[in-house]
Amino acid sequence: MSGNSFGLLYCVTSFGESHGPAYGGVVDGCPPGLVLSAADLQKELDRRRPGGSRHVTQRRESDAVEILSGVYEGRTTGTPVGFLIRNEDARPKDYAAIAEKFRPGHADYTYLQKYGVRDARGGGRASARETVVRVAAGAIAKKWLKEKYGTQVRGYLAELGSKKLGFGRWEEVDRNVFFSSNAKVVPELEKLMDALREAGDSCGARVNVVASGVPVGWGEPVYGRLDADIAAAMMGINAVKGVEIGAGFAAIGQKGSEHGDEMTPDGFLSNHNGGVLGGISTGQDITVSIALKPTSSIRLPRRTIDGQGKPATIETTGRHDPCVGIRATPIAEAMLACVLMDHALRHRAQCGDVQPPLRLGRKA
Amino acid sequence: MSGNSFGLLYCVTSFGESHGPAYGGVVDGCPPGLVLSAADLQKELDRRRPGGSRHVTQRRESDAVEILSGVYEGRTTGTPVGFLIRNEDARPKDYAAIAEKFRPGHADYTYLQKYGVRDARGGGRASARETVVRVAAGAIAKKWLKEKYGTQVRGYLAELGSKKLGFGRWEEVDRNVFFSSNAKVVPELEKLMDALREAGDSCGARVNVVASGVPVGWGEPVYGRLDADIAAAMMGINAVKGVEIGAGFAAIGQKGSEHGDEMTPDGFLSNHNGGVLGGISTGQDITVSIALKPTSSIRLPRRTIDGQGKPATIETTGRHDPCVGIRATPIAEAMLACVLMDHALRHRAQCGDVQPPLRLGRKA
Amino acid sequence: MSGNSFGLLYCVTSFGESHGPAYGGVVDGCPPGLVLSAADLQKELDRRRPGGSRHVTQRRESDAVEILSGVYEGRTTGTPVGFLIRNEDARPKDYAAIAEKFRPGHADYTYLQKYGVRDARGGGRASARETVVRVAAGAIAKKWLKEKYGTQVRGYLAELGSKKLGFGRWEEVDRNVFFSSNAKVVPELEKLMDALREAGDSCGARVNVVASGVPVGWGEPVYGRLDADIAAAMMGINAVKGVEIGAGFAAIGQKGSEHGDEMTPDGFLSNHNGGVLGGISTGQDITVSIALKPTSSIRLPRRTIDGQGKPATIETTGRHDPCVGIRATPIAEAMLACVLMDHALRHRAQCGDVQPPLRLGRKA
Amino acid sequence: MSGNSFGLLYCVTSFGESHGPAYGGVVDGCPPGLVLSAADLQKELDRRRPGGSRHVTQRRESDAVEILSGVYEGRTTGTPVGFLIRNEDARPKDYAAIAEKFRPGHADYTYLQKYGVRDARGGGRASARETVVRVAAGAIAKKWLKEKYGTQVRGYLAELGSKKLGFGRWEEVDRNVFFSSNAKVVPELEKLMDALREAGDSCGARVNVVASGVPVGWGEPVYGRLDADIAAAMMGINAVKGVEIGAGFAAIGQKGSEHGDEMTPDGFLSNHNGGVLGGISTGQDITVSIALKPTSSIRLPRRTIDGQGKPATIETTGRHDPCVGIRATPIAEAMLACVLMDHALRHRAQCGDVQPPLRLGRKA
Repeated sequence: MSGNSFGLLYCVTSFGESHGPAYGGVVDGCPPGLVLSAADLQKELDRRRPGGSRHVTQRRESDAVEILSGVYEGRTTGTPVGFLIRNEDARPKDYAAIAEKFRPGHADYTYLQKYGVRDARGGGRASARETVVRVAAGAIAKKWLKEKYGTQVRGYLAELGSKKLGFGRWEEVDRNVFFSSNAKVVPELEKLMDALREAGDSCGARVNVVASGVPVGWGEPVYGRLDADIAAAMMGINAVKGVEIGAGFAAIGQKGSEHGDEMTPDGFLSNHNGGVLGGISTGQDITVSIALKPTSSIRLPRRTIDGQGKPATIETTGRHDPCVGIRATPIAEAMLACVLMDHALRHRAQCGDVQPPLRLGRKA
Repeated sequence: MSGNSFGLLYCVTSFGESHGPAYGGVVDGCPPGLVLSAADLQKELDRRRPGGSRHVTQRRESDAVEILSGVYEGRTTGTPVGFLIRNEDARPKDYAAIAEKFRPGHADYTYLQKYGVRDARGGGRASARETVVRVAAGAIAKKWLKEKYGTQVRGYLAELGSKKLGFGRWEEVDRNVFFSSNAKVVPELEKLMDALREAGDSCGARVNVVASGVPVGWGEPVYGRLDADIAAAMMGINAVKGVEIGAGFAAIGQKGSEHGDEMTPDGFLSNHNGGVLGGISTGQDITVSIALKPTSSIRLPRRTIDGQGKPATIETTGRHDPCVGIRATPIAEAMLACVLMDHALRHRAQCGDVQPPLRLGRKA
Repeated sequence: MSGNSFGLLYCVTSFGESHGPAYGGVVDGCPPGLVLSAADLQKELDRRRPGGSRHVTQRRESDAVEILSGVYEGRTTGTPVGFLIRNEDARPKDYAAIAEKFRPGHADYTYLQKYGVRDARGGGRASARETVVRVAAGAIAKKWLKEKYGTQVRGYLAELGSKKLGFGRWEEVDRNVFFSSNAKVVPELEKLMDALREAGDSCGARVNVVASGVPVGWGEPVYGRLDADIAAAMMGINAVKGVEIGAGFAAIGQKGSEHGDEMTPDGFLSNHNGGVLGGISTGQDITVSIALKPTSSIRLPRRTIDGQGKPATIETTGRHDPCVGIRATPIAEAMLACVLMDHALRHRAQCGDVQPPLRLGRKA
Repeated sequence: MSGNSFGLLYCVTSFGESHGPAYGGVVDGCPPGLVLSAADLQKELDRRRPGGSRHVTQRRESDAVEILSGVYEGRTTGTPVGFLIRNEDARPKDYAAIAEKFRPGHADYTYLQKYGVRDARGGGRASARETVVRVAAGAIAKKWLKEKYGTQVRGYLAELGSKKLGFGRWEEVDRNVFFSSNAKVVPELEKLMDALREAGDSCGARVNVVASGVPVGWGEPVYGRLDADIAAAMMGINAVKGVEIGAGFAAIGQKGSEHGDEMTPDGFLSNHNGGVLGGISTGQDITVSIALKPTSSIRLPRRTIDGQGKPATIETTGRHDPCVGIRATPIAEAMLACVLMDHALRHRAQCGDVQPPLRLGRKA
C-alpha cells in the first residue's frame, strides 16, 4: 500500500493540495447497509472547519462535501465511497513571497529535497487542510462503530501551550471553539490566543482522545497491534510529535505493583494501560494523548535559507492557525475511529467464530 | 498484510512462542549482494540475550541463530532470508500455576478473550522473547544502512524508574548490562535493581534511540510518514506506552519561535523536530524516545480473576525481567533500523531519479 | 489493501458507479517530474469512449477528465494524482424493468447476494464503465514507461467471435473502431456486428497485448511474479475468462525441446515464454492474450429469476455493447502498463544497485 | 507486501532454496480453534513428494514437515503457524556443469540479470521444490474450508502433452501417480512418459481444479475479484502459462445467448462462468484450468550462452521431472484453497452482517 492510503480493511485513500482544485478521498471496505448521507460527513467537517473564530486561520471554506459513489438510496452498498471537497478560498498568490524560502519547522524544505519539485502554494500536500479527508472518513467510521457496537470516540483539548485545561464535561467540548471540556478556562484561552496572535508567535497543544464501548479483542499482535496502529495514525497527523496510550510516559516512574491494572469480576480496578494489553483491546476505555507542536508559519522573523541555499530571513504573513492543536480534536477522533473500525473488521475476519469465554464488568 | 508482518519493501514476518519449539523470521526484500552471515545476526542477538546478569531474567538461552535461505556464498541473493532460533530453556511447567489466572497488566486476558484459547506457557506469543526476531531482522537492516548510506542506529537507556541517567558517551553503552551511556550511574542502577528484585516489584524505563547519517528525503506523506511508521514500530514493542520524536511532549510548551528549527547554509541550528518534517527526513539525526511500562509479572500479590471469572490472588514466580526496559535498547534500535531501511527502498523506488536540489551542512 | 486498489508502489484506487454522479481514481506513487496534463489521460480515454460507432453502446459520454491534484506547473509532484470523470448520460430509469430480475451471465445476482443490496442502475459498480479509471491510470503509466525506458504497450483485437483477424500492422489499430491491426477484415467485422445486433445477441472476443522495450529483471518471485500480477490485472477486467502469456495453452502440446527459447549472444531465438521466465522479464516482448466472454445484456429472452426468487424471463433493452471485447484493447493496454510500472518501481527499490551482468541482443 | 507473501488475511510467506538447508513458511491469519497437526500437512505434502515413480524426479526427499508455532494442545491459537521442511537429498555438485550456462526456458538467466548474483544449485529459489510451502499452507486452508463451509477443492490431470485424458471419477485421482481421474488411460500415459524420458525431452500438461461447496458472495470487486486472485495464484505456479475460469478461451466463440448461465429457482442451468460473476462467487462450482509448459531441464542439447555471454551448448542431466505438470495437481489445489480461504475471511470482515436474500438450488 502506498503512502496516501491507510487501513487494511477499512481503507482510506486521500488526495489534494491546499491551493489546488479540491481534496478528495476514497473509503473502501465499509460494510453495506449503513444509512449514510453527505450530512453525516458534513457534521464532522463543520467541527474542524477554518474560519470559525478569530483564533484560527481566517481562510473561508465551506468544506462542502459531495459523495460521489458507494451510497444508493441512502445506504452504503459495500462499494467504495468516493467524496470530494472543493477548495473555494484558495489564494496561491499569498505564497509568492515565501515560495522561495523555507519556513523553519515546516515541510517546505523536505518536500523540495525529496521530490525535487515543490508546490509552494500554502504548503501544498503538506498543508493541514488535508485533514478534511481524514475527518470525512472518520465520520463514517464513527457512525458505524456507534451503531454496530455502541462505541463512542470523543476528544478534547487538554493543554494549550503551558496551560493545562483539566477535564470538565463531554457536553462542553463542542460549545467552544477550543474543544475544551472545561468551560471555565475558555476566557483565559481567548486571552492567551489574543496575546499570541499579537506577538506573531504560535504555541503547542495536547489533545486527549477516548474511545468508550470498545469490545474486548480488537488488535492483531505482534506488529499489527491496536496500539501500534493508533500510534501511527496519531503521529501521522500534522504537527504531532508524541503519542501516549494509557499512563504513557508516566509509566516510566510507576512500579509494577502500581501500573498493572488489577481485575475483579466487576472489571478492572484501574486503566493505566489505556484499554490495550498486548496490543489487544481490553474492553476498557481506550485513552490516547498526543502532543502537537506549535505552528511553523509565524509572523516573527526567523533565520532560514532561500531556494539557492543562501541565508535569508522569513516572516510568514499568510492565513494560519496560531495553534494547530486547537482544531486537532475532531481530526484525532477521526483517526482513532478509522483505526478502530479497521480492527473491528479484521477481528471478525479471523475470530468471527470466537465467543469471548469471560464476561467482565466495566468498572474502570 | 497480516498482523505478524511489517514493512512494505523491507518486510519482516515473525512466528514463534516463548515455550514452543522455536522462533523464526523471514526478511523479504533485502537487496542482493550484501555480505551476510549468521554472525552478523548473532552479534545483535547476543546484546539482547537473557541471562547476562542478575538484573534480567535467569532463563538460559543461547539464542543461536541459523540462516536457512537467501544467502549464497556469503552474500544475500535478493530472495527471502529465513532464520530460526530454537528455544532451549523452555520450562512450560513453570506456568502451570498461573495458567488459570490472569496477570494484571499482562496480555493473558486479552489473548484468551480474542482467540478463545490461550497458550499460557510463559505468555505464549505475547512474550517479549518474540523480540529475537526483530533484533535479527534489524541486524540486517543496520548492516545495509551502514554500508550503503553510512547510517548508524544507536540507543541507550535514558531513565530507569524515576532515575534519569543522562547521556554520557556512545562507547559506554555496550560496556554495561543496562545499556547506560553513562558509566557513573551503573553502581546506583545495580542497587536500584537489587532493591526492586528483593521487593518482588518491577519498574518502567525510558530508552532513547538515534539514527545519524540519514539522508534527506525518506518518508511518504501523508499516511506513510517516516515518523508515523516509527511510532508504530516503537509502540509495537512489548510494554511501550509512549513515543516521542524530537521535542516530543515538550513541544506543547514551546513557542513556534522556539520550536521551529532555523536554517543556515551550514545546516539547521537546532533539532526540535527530531530529524523529521512533514513526515520526511531532514538529514539531521532522527531522535526517538520511548516509555516502557514496568514488567507485569511480579512476585507481589495482586488481585485478579481466574479462568472461571472468580476473584483470585496472583503472585508470579517465573523467571522474568524486573525491568523489561533494560533489554529494550537493542530492540528499539532494530525496529528503527527496519523502518529506515524500508523507507530507503521506498524512496528510491519513487524518487530514484531525483537529485536533492540543495546541499546543506550538518550543523545540528 | 482493499479490493478497489491495485499495485504496490504504483497504486491505483477506483470509485464510481455507472449511473451515479461520477467515476474517479487516485494514482499514488507516480515519480515526480513527469510532464502531465489532462490531455494525456483524455487521449487514452477517447480511445475507449462509448458512442464511437453503431457497433458499441449508444450511451453518449464525453468522458472528460479533470485532474484534481498531484500536478503542479505541468509536472507531477510525487503526491497522489486524483482525477474525476462525471457521468453525463446516466439514465437510471432505463433499468427499472431489469431492476427486479437477474441477467444471466451478469453480476446482478452476485452483488445482491454478497452485499444484501444492489445498485441496479446499469450494473452499478459492476459496469464496464469503471474501466475509465483504469484507462486514465494506464495513460500515466504508459507515458512514464515510454519516457523512462522506451517501453511501449500496444494491443489489438485478435478474434471477434469465431472470426480470427490475424495481425497486420500496428499503425492500423487506431484507424478502425474494432482496434483491428488488419484493415482488410474490417468490412467483414461490420457485417458480423450488424447481424449480431439484429439478432439481439452478443459474442466474445480475443485481445492481444504486447509490451516491447521492457528491460530484463522486472518481477518479484515467487508470488509477486510479473506474470502472476499480469494475470490478475487481466482476469480483473470485466468479462475476461482466460489469460495466456507467451505460448499459453499451446505450451501443453509442445515438447521442451520446442518450447524452451534458445539463446545466442544476439538474443533469444524465439519467444514462447512471452517475455517472462521464472516470473521475471527477459527483456523480450511481453505477450499477453485474453479471452472476453460475450456481453451478458442481450435482447434475446432468457430464463431467470426475479427478486423474490420466482421464475421469470428477461430481455435486456438498455444501451449495451454487443461485444465488450471491441472496446477492451485500450483497457488491456492500460492494465498491462500499470503492472509494468509498478514492477519497474519495485525492481529499482530492491535492485537499484545491480548492473545486469550480461548484455544480450534483442533478436526475438 | 513483498514478493514472497500472498493473501491479505490468510497470508502465506515462503522462504527456501532447492539445495539450501530448508524450506519454510509462515501462515498468518488462520482462525483459532482449528484442530491441526503436522500429519494434516504431511498428507498433502506426500501427494506432491518427488521420487514416487519413475516418471518424476528421482530426488529422494521425505518432505517431513515440522510445525514450529501457532498450534497449542492440537488446535490453532490464531498466532502464525510457522513450519519447516529440511532438504535431505540436496546435491549441489550436480549443478556445477550448468552453473555457468543458462537453460533455455529456465529462470537461470533472469535471476542472474535481476539480482546480479545467482544461486545455481538446482535452480535455487526458482526451483519448483518451493511448492512444498504452498502445499503445506494449502493443507490448512483445505481443512478449514471443509470444516467451516463444506467446501472441497479437488484437481486432476486433464492433458498430458497432446493426449487428452478426459474426466473419470474423483476417487481415481489419488490412485495413480499421474493424478488422472481416468484409470483407463494410465498405461498409455506410462508409455508416453517412458518414450519422453528415453528421448531426453519433456512435455506440457493441463490441470483442472474444481472447488465445490463455495458459498455465494466471496470476492471483492473490482480489482480484488475472486477470479483475479485465482488467476494470480495459478499463473504464479512454476511453469504455468495460461489460466482459464469456466468456459475460458472457448467463451470467445460463444454467443451471449449460449454463454450466459440461465437461472431457475432450482439453480443455474449451466456453468460457463465457472462459478464467478463480476468477481464474486455464484455458489456454483469454481472451475479452473491451467496450462503448464514442458520442463526446461532436458537432456537434449540446446543452444545457449555461458556466463560470459559466449555461445554454448547445454544438456541438462540432473534429476528432473520430464513433465512438471504431473505433480502440479496438489499444488494447484493448494493455491486455490488459499485464495478461497483468504476471500472467505475477507467476505465475513466486510459483509459479516449480510444474509444473502435469496436461496437458490444447486443444479449446475
